[in-house]
Order: sequence, then C-alpha cells, then structure tokens
Amino acid sequence: MRSTLLSRRDIDFLLYEWLHVDRLVERERFADHSKETFDGVLDLCEQVATKYFAPHNKKNDANEPTFDGTTVTIIPEVKEAIDAFSRADLVGLSMDSAIGGSQLPATVSAAGFAWIQAANVGSAAYPFLTVGNANLLAAHGNAELVDTYVKPMIAGRFHGTMCLSEPQAGSSLADITTRAEPQDDGTYRIVGSKMWISGGDHELGENIVHLVLAKVVGGPVGTKGISLFVVPKYLVNADGSIGDRNDVLLAGLNHKMGYRGAVNTVLSFDGATGYLIGEENRGLTYMFHMMNEARLGVGLGATALGYTGYLKSLEYARGREQGRPVAAKDPAAAQVPIVEHPDVRRMLLAQKSYVEGALALNLYCNRLVDLQKTATTPDERASLTLLLDTLTPIAKSWPSQWCLEANSFAIQIHGGYGYTREYDVEQHYRDNRLNPIHEGTHGIQGLDLLGRKVVVQGGAGLAAIAGEVTKTVVAAGELGGEPADLATQLDSTWQRIVSVTAAMFGSGDIEAALANSSVYLEAFGHAVLAWIWLEQLVAADGKSGDFYDGKRQAGRYFYRFELPRTAPQLDLLESLDRTTLEMQDAWF
Amino acid sequence: MRSTLLSRRDIDFLLYEWLHVDRLVERERFADHSKETFDGVLDLCEQVATKYFAPHNKKNDANEPTFDGTTVTIIPEVKEAIDAFSRADLVGLSMDSAIGGSQLPATVSAAGFAWIQAANVGSAAYPFLTVGNANLLAAHGNAELVDTYVKPMIAGRFHGTMCLSEPQAGSSLADITTRAEPQDDGTYRIVGSKMWISGGDHELGENIVHLVLAKVVGGPVGTKGISLFVVPKYLVNADGSIGDRNDVLLAGLNHKMGYRGAVNTVLSFDGATGYLIGEENRGLTYMFHMMNEARLGVGLGATALGYTGYLKSLEYARGREQGRPVAAKDPAAAQVPIVEHPDVRRMLLAQKSYVEGALALNLYCNRLVDLQKTATTPDERASLTLLLDTLTPIAKSWPSQWCLEANSFAIQIHGGYGYTREYDVEQHYRDNRLNPIHEGTHGIQGLDLLGRKVVVQGGAGLAAIAGEVTKTVVAAGELGGEPADLATQLDSTWQRIVSVTAAMFGSGDIEAALANSSVYLEAFGHAVLAWIWLEQLVAADGKSGDFYDGKRQAGRYFYRFELPRTAPQLDLLESLDRTTLEMQDAWF
Repeated sequence: MRSTLLSRRDIDFLLYEWLHVDRLVERERFADHSKETFDGVLDLCEQVATKYFAPHNKKNDANEPTFDGTTVTIIPEVKEAIDAFSRADLVGLSMDSAIGGSQLPATVSAAGFAWIQAANVGSAAYPFLTVGNANLLAAHGNAELVDTYVKPMIAGRFHGTMCLSEPQAGSSLADITTRAEPQDDGTYRIVGSKMWISGGDHELGENIVHLVLAKVVGGPVGTKGISLFVVPKYLVNADGSIGDRNDVLLAGLNHKMGYRGAVNTVLSFDGATGYLIGEENRGLTYMFHMMNEARLGVGLGATALGYTGYLKSLEYARGREQGRPVAAKDPAAAQVPIVEHPDVRRMLLAQKSYVEGALALNLYCNRLVDLQKTATTPDERASLTLLLDTLTPIAKSWPSQWCLEANSFAIQIHGGYGYTREYDVEQHYRDNRLNPIHEGTHGIQGLDLLGRKVVVQGGAGLAAIAGEVTKTVVAAGELGGEPADLATQLDSTWQRIVSVTAAMFGSGDIEAALANSSVYLEAFGHAVLAWIWLEQLVAADGKSGDFYDGKRQAGRYFYRFELPRTAPQLDLLESLDRTTLEMQDAWF
Repeated sequence: MRSTLLSRRDIDFLLYEWLHVDRLVERERFADHSKETFDGVLDLCEQVATKYFAPHNKKNDANEPTFDGTTVTIIPEVKEAIDAFSRADLVGLSMDSAIGGSQLPATVSAAGFAWIQAANVGSAAYPFLTVGNANLLAAHGNAELVDTYVKPMIAGRFHGTMCLSEPQAGSSLADITTRAEPQDDGTYRIVGSKMWISGGDHELGENIVHLVLAKVVGGPVGTKGISLFVVPKYLVNADGSIGDRNDVLLAGLNHKMGYRGAVNTVLSFDGATGYLIGEENRGLTYMFHMMNEARLGVGLGATALGYTGYLKSLEYARGREQGRPVAAKDPAAAQVPIVEHPDVRRMLLAQKSYVEGALALNLYCNRLVDLQKTATTPDERASLTLLLDTLTPIAKSWPSQWCLEANSFAIQIHGGYGYTREYDVEQHYRDNRLNPIHEGTHGIQGLDLLGRKVVVQGGAGLAAIAGEVTKTVVAAGELGGEPADLATQLDSTWQRIVSVTAAMFGSGDIEAALANSSVYLEAFGHAVLAWIWLEQLVAADGKSGDFYDGKRQAGRYFYRFELPRTAPQLDLLESLDRTTLEMQDAWF
C-alpha cells in the first residue's frame, strides 16, 4: 500500500535523479556513507514515522498538554515516539561523528525528518527543537557545554528549546528585556519572561536545555546588546548527573488552533543560572545560525503537512463516487470517482505542484548547506552562503503559504467530510496555519528578502539566484521542445524581476521600495518555484512512465496557472505603489 | 465604544447613501415602514447580537453539542439567545404580515441578521435555518402547512432544518435514495438517511420541522423525480398541540473544525410520516427557492465573520506596539503601534476591501430580492430575477473565499496571539472555512455560473450584469477624476470578460469551456466586486471626512492590488486550457 505520508518515489527522484546526493560521498565529510546508508536512513525514518508518530496524531490534537500548576501532562504516546526517535539515532543524524552524530548530509537528514513531520507535526516539534538546539550549541558552545548538554541531547536524555520572544517583543527582538547579571563564578543570573516557548516544560526526558536570548546589564541597546545563554531546567552536576531545579518556572500554557500536540509555554526566569555561549553581545548572530536552520525546518514542516494532505485527498478522490462527466449527464449511469472531474484534478494538480515543488526547494537548500559545509575554498563557501541566504526566506515562507493552500484544497476535495475531525485534513490545515507566523512572520521574511538578502553586496544576492536560473534556462533550452518553451517563460519572468528590483531601489525612496515587500516575497517565491519546477523537468527529460508524465503535467500546471500570477504583482511593485503608505489610521 | 462586530456607519452608508433603501417604503409591500422602523430593527439586532449571541461564542465553540444516545445537550446560553431572537420578533422579519411577519425589506433584514452572524455564527445557524425553512414553506406550502408549521416557527416555538444531502449524495442531488411511499391517507412514508443536517436534533423548542428531499417510488430518475416533504420530529395534532414522536432518529453527530456551536447531524428516517409540499417531482424547484436565499445567507455569514475579524485585528493593531518605521530604526526610540507598518496596513486594507465589498454585494442582492418581489410588470420581474440569479453564485462564493482570507490576515496581524484560542480570530477562521463547502461547493458555484447562469437565454445573464456595469461606468465617467479612471479600468475588464466568455463557448467544446469554471468564478467574482466598489465610490463622491476617505482608499486598494489578478486568469480561460482535462489519474 502506498504511504499517504510522503512519496518515497518522489524523494528518490529528487535526491538521486535530480540533486545527485549520492555524489556527496565523494566529499571527505560524508566519505563513510553510501547510497545504501542514505536509503537505510530514509527507510528507518518512514518506519519510525509510520509506527510511532502517525498513530497518535489525532489523539495528540484532541488531548492537548495540560498543566496542573506543578506538572505538564502529555499523552504517553508522545514519549514513546520521541524515545523511538532517539533510539533510532535520529537526533544526531547530521551532527559530527566526533560528538556522537552520524554525520549524514543535511539533505538526507531533511528528507528523513519530513516523514516524521508528515506523520505528526506536533510530536515532531520536540526533536525538531532538540536538534536545532544541539546544532547551535555544538557550533558555538565550548567543549564543556557540548559535553554537558549536547551529548545527552543526542542520546535522547535531554531535550532542547529556543527562548527568543517575550510578551512585549515578538517580531522585534531588539526590544527584549530579559536581563543577564554576571556572577562572580562566571555564570549569569537570568531574569525575565519568555513567550511562545515550544517544549518549554514537560516530563519527556531528564532535563530541558533552554537557549535564552538576554541582555547583559549595562550593554548596548537594541540587537547589539543581545547575548545567548544555556539555562537548563535542572542544573547538571560536574559528573553529569542531574542536580537542583534551576529557577525556571512555567507561567502558563498557550492554547493554539493547531499544533496542539506540542506544548507551548510562557516561561518565567526568576534569577535562573545561565551559562554564556561564546561571547557577550553576539547572541543574535549565534541564534541566527539556528534560526536559518529552523526556517528551512519550518518550510519543511509546512511542506510535509501539505504533502500528506495531498496524498490523503488523492486517495479520497479515487474512492469517492459522485456525479458524472459534463459530457455524460445521464442520471441513470453510474457515478464516477471524483478524481475524474476536471475541477478536482485542478485542486489535485495545484497541491501536487505546491508540495512537490516545496519539497524540491527544501532539499535543494539543504544540499546547499552540505555543499557549503564541505566547500574547499572560501570563495566557493561565500557564494554558496549567498545563494542559501537569499533563498532562505522563500524556503520558509513559500511552503507556509502554498502548502497551507494545498491543505485547504485537500479539505475542499473531501467536501463536508474534510471539514470534520473524523478525517485528517482539517487538522493539517489548522496545524499548517502556524507556519506563516513562527520563526519570522511572512511580513518579516518579506523585509528580510527585499531589504536585506537581494540587495546585499550591491545586489549580489539577487544576481546569485538569477545566475542559477540562467544555467537552468540554458540547460532546458538545449533540450528543445516543451522545456525550452518553459525556459523562455522563466527567463522573461526573471529578467522582469531583476529590472523591477532595480527600478524599486533606483528611486532612492526606501520607504516606498519596502512598502510592498510582502508582494515582492510572493512574486519572487513563485518565480523561484518555477525555476525549481524547470529543474525537475530537465531531470525528468527523456524518461517515460506515469511518474515522469505526472512531473511534466504538474510543471505545466505551474507554468500555466501559477507563474502568470506574478505579472500583475511585478507591475504593482514597479509602480512603487504608495497605497499602504498613504492610508491613514483614522480612515479604517 | 465602537462595536467590533460590524460597522453601523458602513451599514448606514450602504443602505441609505448608496442603495437608498428608504425609498422602498414607496412600494405598497413596505408602505407601513419608514427609515425609523428600519433603524429600529438594526438597533435591535445589534443589541440582541451583543447581549445574547456574542457572549457565548467562545463557550459554544469549546463545548460543542453532545449526544448521549437519547438527547442532544447544548449549552443553555444557546436557547437563551434563540429565545431572545424570537421574542424580538426577528424570525418573521421579512415575512408577510398576513402570517405574522413584519414584512420588512430583505435588505434591512439581511443587514440586521449580519449582526447575529458576526456575534456567533454557530448559534445563528438555528434561526438561519428556521427562517429559510419558514420562507420556503410559506411560499410553497398550503394553508394547513403554513398554519401548522410556519406560524409556530415565526413565534419561536418550532425550529426548522433542510435535509438534502445523503452520505452517498452530497453535491450530486440527482443520486439521493431517500424514498417516499404514498399512503392511503394522503401522507407519505419516508425512508432513508440524511447527512450534514444542521440543527437536526436538539431540545431548543417544542418541535423540529424537517424539509426533506425524497423520491416518490416509481417516479422519474435523477433530479426530475425529487419531491419535497415536511417531516416533523413530533407529529402535530389537529388542534396544534404536540403529538407522538415521528420516526426520525438521530443516527449521530458530525464533529467539525469550526461552526461547532451548531449541532450537525446524521438523521435516519425510518418510515417517518411526511407531508408533500406542492406537487410531486417538483421538490428541487421548491428547494432552490430556499437554496438561493440560503446562498445569499451563507455569503452574508462569511462576510460577517470576515467583518468582525477585520475590526478585531484593527483594534489589536492600534494597541499593539512593536517595531519601528523603516525610516527610523533607532532601537532607543519607542516602539510604534503596528498599524503604522505598511504591511499591517496592507493586511487591514485587504480585509476592509473584502468585507465592505462583500457586505455591499450582499445588500445589493437582497435589494434585488425586494425589487423583484415588488416589481410591477412581469418584464421588470424577469430582468431582476435574471440579474439576481447570475449574481447569486458570486454572492455565495466570493465572500466564502475572500472573507476567509480576511480572517487569515486577522490572525496574521495578531501574530502568535492570533493563533491561540485566547483571542477570537482563530475561531472565525475555522468557522469561515465551512462556507466554501456548504450550500454548494466553490466548484459547484463555478459550474452554476459558467454552465448555466451566464449562458441562459443566449447569454442574457452575462449581458444583464454587463449592462449594470456599464451604467456605473457611465456614472463614474461623468464624475471625472479618479472615479473616471477606475471606470476605464473596470470597463476594460468587463469587455474582456464578455469577449473571453464568447471565445470559450465559441469553440463548441463544452468540456474545455467548463474545465476551468472555478477560475472563471474567481475572475468574474473579482470583476463583480470591482464594480461594487466603484458603485460605492460614486455614492461617496464629493463627500469629505475619514469615513469617505477610507472608502476611497479601500477602493483604490482593490483596483491596484486585486482587480489585476483577473488578467492572467482571463488569459488562461481564453486559451481553453486543457491541463486538467489531459491529466491522467495514474500520473498523480
């Protein structure tokens, strides 16, 4: 039976036929691996997802974590799943073998983790945070912090969180007020309140490792004064055993529309002991190491939710008989499966183009992570970093927008049934609605893309992507036929993006240039995805069979129904439209 | 304090400054009324909504109806609210005074009911169904049925439902299998199962009046063999007192993502006694009387949810301080309310343009109902009917799509808070997601619009709207300035719709013409709303003040950000794109 979580066939195509991830083993970091070990990890992730995560997805949603004032209670299946995840050595999948990781490519690790997210995005949030936390600490913490906290996280004994937001400071991290008071023993006393902390308290392991942004008293104002600390729930003794409770209190739980399985908390740091990571005032830089990884991870989660919703609605559409073709309306004839209706096929094709495109983009970005990590020259590394940085806001925002739309189509295909909790898709839709919000809202991603990423180094960010697009356009052009036609359409869209971007900043009116950055984000995102689709079609060229025909049809759908949306958006941007700037509060 | 349910200022503008509803009192049907009675009803509805419906909206969502195998239990606030609604004589608002109604214009009645829906769409579902049921029965039932069932519904003693769908027949009513066996006494024995019946069982009144579609045994196949029956939960004695329980059983409840306050049921008719309405085999015609009214009502509910979400997110944006303007990034400066950020204003303007546009369209359609009902010649009535019929799929689908989008923006403006159940907007979003499904899905509305409404009588449906648009274009053109510019843009869009529609059917390939009917629905919908916005701007022309400036800015937003979306859609339609037709099941 085909899985309704993800398509392994598609993953294999993306990893091996398109991205040639198997060639990464030629690099020293991955030399101990082979296509067989990659396949083994993917098999394992599918099994863990199917056996331990999927079965309690609904139960976790219907029985969200509770707090009695002392203890957070979570249904037992969550701990069983997370323990199974750790037992399978999945926490340290892409971490260095020197600290107990498997040192696999991030590309393979992401493809594997997508199975877990597709199965149960709520329960997946715990290892998601632990992995991100451990990666950051391994990169920026000293040997003692690594030994004390990272290794137990890789072993599944400790779990991790990231504590950035505060009640009065969500998108604006410059305004956090949590303070860190240096102590004589080199530790810091942490005082403040943190909001939206997923996994902030629970009994799933021996300890919880909080990574906390705080301002050392007397330091610079704004983001320049932010430092990063490890603040464990329980202090750890010198021998690694669990010591006293630290002064981190659970102030309350947030009750969400979706993602209910992941406990989300308000934490109060009442003079808790914290350990500085790296240097003072460099906290935001370290945190962005995790944030960028987390943004790819959020995009992956949105994609995984979109993907499973697509497969479930496809299965439903094949089984549900309703109505007759337009050309054969005889009511005495048998009804047909709704997959036969063009409008249902439109909703399936839209989903297919969104979720397969989003997964492709995510794996492409994760391969950039791998290439960057194993780059042999600083120039090579710098150009990979530039490309990855520019793509990151798209890899976060695009799936969050369009795979949510995919989930809406999945509901629509199910009709009334899709709106009920007896089916899965309404939960996917609720869960997915978080993704345009956390790890930087859609609006923040737009400002990041337009105000920072595309314009850095005199526009090098934009040029980096445009350069990659040109390579694809050339490759598709050489194939002739349909790929060449699509390449022409893609090329013209990108030329337009380049000229519109120049016009926007050419005016010198930065306020006007940035006023419609969300529209820019959307147009840019669709243009990136069109490129990713052409990449896939080039990889599929000359190959026959249903799978490749499906890729081609989804690509056609994207170029015919989706890419043209960008034209009016780019016109608006080029006009430096001031509608939102000129709107007055009193006029609402 | 300004209400966060709806804007009375906007309603007054639409009713009096634009639609001139006060002039309806010149017509005999409404001669007993005046602007003062209209205003009184609007005041009353706002009060009932605010006092009885709004306070338990969240409680109703968190405590959905339960069924213990015998009785449905609903939180007591629902009955209190519905009783208050009946006590205020709101059930019979637009019904004939001869049967106990207030004989108010539908336009006023709709504006009043929108308050109830904005306050609590779940609890509003009960009177919504009762009113629709009573209207149908008053129009097509004989005097005995009216006396026995309609009058107690108007008095608030009985409640009503509509029973169309079955587990195997949702969108395809031709395939219902519930059968009606004629009995010697003139009644029918009803046998079958009905699905998605809102208000199907409860203890909110003395009786529940089900209107049931069924096929008289031996009748024609398909929709031509459908008849309509009254099937009460309790039989009613000749003296009007409640008699024996009829054989209508509650088979179970459906558990929905939203709209949780409205009990939704599976009903089993196990030989229940039914009373024929009108003639055999004409049931679908009668039901469409109710369906068309219900479609306007669904659009109104979607609008009301969008509207209250808009007002709540506006209030939040004015109070929440976060970040600084692009041009003044000094972190030592105070943060500004987020309403100052252009991207937040964009999301507020989008909501404003959607919800005010949708409300305007709905009231426009309801005024067509009033004009049609009081038309003095058959020709006048026919042309009003044509216009109303053509607009109905838009009035149902457009708010269901875009006021849902408005609710998504309302969440986004709230950030993480909007995703929690501590705030209202996530519930509005969940509630609103039903509206693209019930009373005919988006896909069904698209087929209705393109395959039926615009092409009837050789394209008279399309011509009817285009004719009205032209009148507006002329009026705006005469004003000169910005209205004239927008009129040019509107005119060109409508000319394009007319020519694209002709090209689609000109090919003679009906299958291809209808393949993208949902895309047609969306493009057509945006073009209709652009017309409705220009209508409002003409009504606001020459008037000064924040309210009118706000209308103008929202109109500008719609013409700059929204209407241009139609261009690529119309290009796709003109090309008679076959992507969805050529897709093969095996390729998914």
